[in-house]
Amino acid sequence: MTIDPRLSSLSLNQKTTNSWSLEEAVAGAERAGLSWIGLWREPVQQIGVDKAARLVSDAGLQVSSLCRGGFITAEEGPARRASIADNVRAIEESATLGTTCLVMVVGGLPEGSRDLAGARERVAEGIAELAPHAAAHGVRLALEPMNPIYCADRGVLSTLGQALDLAELFPTEQVGVVVDTFHVWWDPAVLPQIERAAGRIASFQVCDWITPLPADALLSRGMMGDGHIDFPVLRRAVEAAGYDGPTEVEIFNADVWASDPEAVVSLMSERYLSCVLDS
Amino acid sequence: MTIDPRLSSLSLNQKTTNSWSLEEAVAGAERAGLSWIGLWREPVQQIGVDKAARLVSDAGLQVSSLCRGGFITAEEGPARRASIADNVRAIEESATLGTTCLVMVVGGLPEGSRDLAGARERVAEGIAELAPHAAAHGVRLALEPMNPIYCADRGVLSTLGQALDLAELFPTEQVGVVVDTFHVWWDPAVLPQIERAAGRIASFQVCDWITPLPADALLSRGMMGDGHIDFPVLRRAVEAAGYDGPTEVEIFNADVWASDPEAVVSLMSERYLSCVLDS
Repeated sequence: MTIDPRLSSLSLNQKTTNSWSLEEAVAGAERAGLSWIGLWREPVQQIGVDKAARLVSDAGLQVSSLCRGGFITAEEGPARRASIADNVRAIEESATLGTTCLVMVVGGLPEGSRDLAGARERVAEGIAELAPHAAAHGVRLALEPMNPIYCADRGVLSTLGQALDLAELFPTEQVGVVVDTFHVWWDPAVLPQIERAAGRIASFQVCDWITPLPADALLSRGMMGDGHIDFPVLRRAVEAAGYDGPTEVEIFNADVWASDPEAVVSLMSERYLSCVLDS
Repeated sequence: MTIDPRLSSLSLNQKTTNSWSLEEAVAGAERAGLSWIGLWREPVQQIGVDKAARLVSDAGLQVSSLCRGGFITAEEGPARRASIADNVRAIEESATLGTTCLVMVVGGLPEGSRDLAGARERVAEGIAELAPHAAAHGVRLALEPMNPIYCADRGVLSTLGQALDLAELFPTEQVGVVVDTFHVWWDPAVLPQIERAAGRIASFQVCDWITPLPADALLSRGMMGDGHIDFPVLRRAVEAAGYDGPTEVEIFNADVWASDPEAVVSLMSERYLSCVLDS
């Protein structure tokens, strides 16, 4: 089988093939002709960060991003200190894995709190505290604005504009943003905000918005082409803003997870070429 | 039982007591000491618009809003013409019912389309076509920005700012906006946009954002106090913008609908006083 050379810009986020071990995901990405893989901390920690780094490197792959840091909305106290310390570890892990991109899912409202403005302020404070650690390790904190469906419980950064307002308080190489189509496609301001994000785009992630929305909101992402998102218009905007890194596919979806991972990677590659690259 | 006089600013949207007929909802609102009711076109048409108007009036109530016009994202053709004609009828029905507020749920992407910008343009064209009809009947088209969770299939107006960009193309009395807490609470720009909306706020609706999000996205609204929204901060902003109309409660939720409607109205009244008015 001839592998399309354009697949070298595609990254398999390991969550897309959730039933595969890290070893299997690395091997699967290599077989598919990809050059990149997106990793998650838990499976990396399970086999050890150094070993994971070697595994990826030995397969000729690079790590496009590490998921995830964040969850820094708690008020000052032991829980917040533990979270900051954990984020420092995540920064170190990113450096060991050779990726500059640590995806930051900043967290939702603390249990029982309705103070959204306060939670957002604490995110800014947390980033300010973590940025020097990131700089010291050559890692960039990649703020991920999340679809408002997750505002209460996952991420109080809700728009790309809001993420940029925060990122711009810091040097470009310390704090960037993630442009994930699932999270930003609906935003009337998404194109001008992508333009504004020039130099700040740390990751471009793609998956689709499907309807009816699956019952579990956390597993509601679809394979590209199965939903409503116009990928080329967003890809072109990201490219026009100067982003030339990989395009990462991260799909949380029970049906995708129940499928044969090899077939998922194959379909992902096909849809990347037909739905994301072509226009 | 003494009825708290502050309940005169509360409106029962009849969808909140979905198992009640229109007659039952009117009687229930009257018993609860409310002065307002929000109606839906289908039950109104079932008993006849004139009869519905008399029923409400005889109970000493006023209609706070009629739901709903909209669904004007189709491309030009018979379906679009039918939708425009139906919206003209909705305007006439609003006038007959004595309400100036026709809630506009503008519609999602047409079947099979991924052209979000095009759908949004057609909304603007549809409003331009309908505004003179609204003016002729003394009715205001109340643009409802919807939570992005509904962008694909219900409403491509996703933020209050976007709704105001459109509304401001028309005279204040012809096109306004709905501020519905469920739809706008997450928006980092919600407070300045409510301030900007002074004179344009046609309706203030409240219900809560609950987690975990119920399995059916269309039935995901919660009773005030059951979720994450800080109502007083939004209510005060709406009041500061000069809105002095009723606060309408519209809850789509399977558990609420399965409850005794009388108890729902009682709980709604209690929560309005404790969660929305008090702060």
